[in-house]
Amino acid sequence: MITGEPSRWVREGGRLLLSTRVLDLWSLRYRHPVRGTQKDFIVARAPDWVNVVAVTPEDKIILVRQFRFGSNDLSLEIPGGVMEQGEDPIAAAVRELSEETGYGGGRVSLMGSVHPNPAIQDNRCHFVLVDGAVPTGPMKWDHDEEIQVSAEGVPEVLALARKGGITHSLTIAALMFYEGVRAV
Amino acid sequence: MITGEPSRWVREGGRLLLSTRVLDLWSLRYRHPVRGTQKDFIVARAPDWVNVVAVTPEDKIILVRQFRFGSNDLSLEIPGGVMEQGEDPIAAAVRELSEETGYGGGRVSLMGSVHPNPAIQDNRCHFVLVDGAVPTGPMKWDHDEEIQVSAEGVPEVLALARKGGITHSLTIAALMFYEGVRAV
Repeated sequence: MITGEPSRWVREGGRLLLSTRVLDLWSLRYRHPVRGTQKDFIVARAPDWVNVVAVTPEDKIILVRQFRFGSNDLSLEIPGGVMEQGEDPIAAAVRELSEETGYGGGRVSLMGSVHPNPAIQDNRCHFVLVDGAVPTGPMKWDHDEEIQVSAEGVPEVLALARKGGITHSLTIAALMFYEGVRAV
Repeated sequence: MITGEPSRWVREGGRLLLSTRVLDLWSLRYRHPVRGTQKDFIVARAPDWVNVVAVTPEDKIILVRQFRFGSNDLSLEIPGGVMEQGEDPIAAAVRELSEETGYGGGRVSLMGSVHPNPAIQDNRCHFVLVDGAVPTGPMKWDHDEEIQVSAEGVPEVLALARKGGITHSLTIAALMFYEGVRAV
C-alpha cells in the first residue's frame, strides 16, 4: 500500500541562530517544489559522531559508564565521541576507543552509518567494529571525563540493551548493527 | 575490570539561550561534587517523543517515508512524533499512528524508553508496540507533512534496518526492542 511519493523540499538558504561548543542551531528556509511556498525549519548542525563496538578476544564488549549532562544521570554506553575535522570514522573510532578505555588493536571495520535524528539534525553517527580489542596503553580523558570501563559478555550486553540497562539510542542502534554482523 | 565509579555532577541552575519550536537550548551550570568547581554545559530540552512499531495481522510492520529537513533527504521510518503536554506514551503512540497512517486498533503496550542523546538532550523517546494494527480511518497530516505509508514483512524490515535502508537511529533502536519482544 502506497499513498504517493513525498515531495522533496528545496533548501533555499539559512540563518545561524546560535553557535555553541556542541552544535550550531540554524533556521533553514525550504521551498515546497510543487506549492512553491517557503517555510523555515529549525536544524541543529553538528560534526559527525562515531560509536565503537569493541569486542575482546574473550568475546566481551567494552562498555563505558559516565555522567551525562543532558540526562543528568550516569549512563552505560559503548565508547564514542565527536569526529575531528578531516578524520575518517575508522581513525576517529580508534582514537576515541584508546582515549576513553585504553583499548586498541584488532580488526577495525565500518559496520554502517545512521542519522541520530534526520528530522532536526544534519549529522550522522558512524558505527565502527573493533574485533579483537586488547589493552594497549593509558587512557586519555578530557578534563571533565570520568569513565568507568568494563567488559561484559556479548549476550549479556545485547539483553541489557533490550531491557533498559542501556538507554542511549545510538549505543542500542550500534549493538543492533553488531548483532547483524555477528550473525553472518 | 572497573576503573572507579564516576562522579555525579550536581546541577546548580541554568540559563535559557534560545527557545525554538522543536527544542530549547540551555546553558546548564553543574558543580563537580569532589573538586567543587563549576562548569556550564549545553543541553537541548525538548518534550518526550514516541515511536510506534505497528504490526498488522499479516505480520507486517507499518513504515512511513517522508522528507526530513535535518538530513535534507527522504527517510524511511516507523511512525512517531512529539508527545503533547499531559499525554502518556500509549495515547501519544495511538494518536501519531492514526494521524500519520490511518492505522489503529490492536493490543498496545510500552516496550521501553530510551534517551535519544543523554549527552546533550534531556528528553526520552518511548517505544510503543501496536500488535494487530488495521486501517481504521483517514490520515490527518500536519500542514507540511506528506507521508508515504507502506507495510513490509518483519524479517525484511529488520534486515533493512541493519543494511542502511533505514537510517533514523530511533527507528533502529525501536526495531531492536521489538525483535526482543517478538523472540520471547
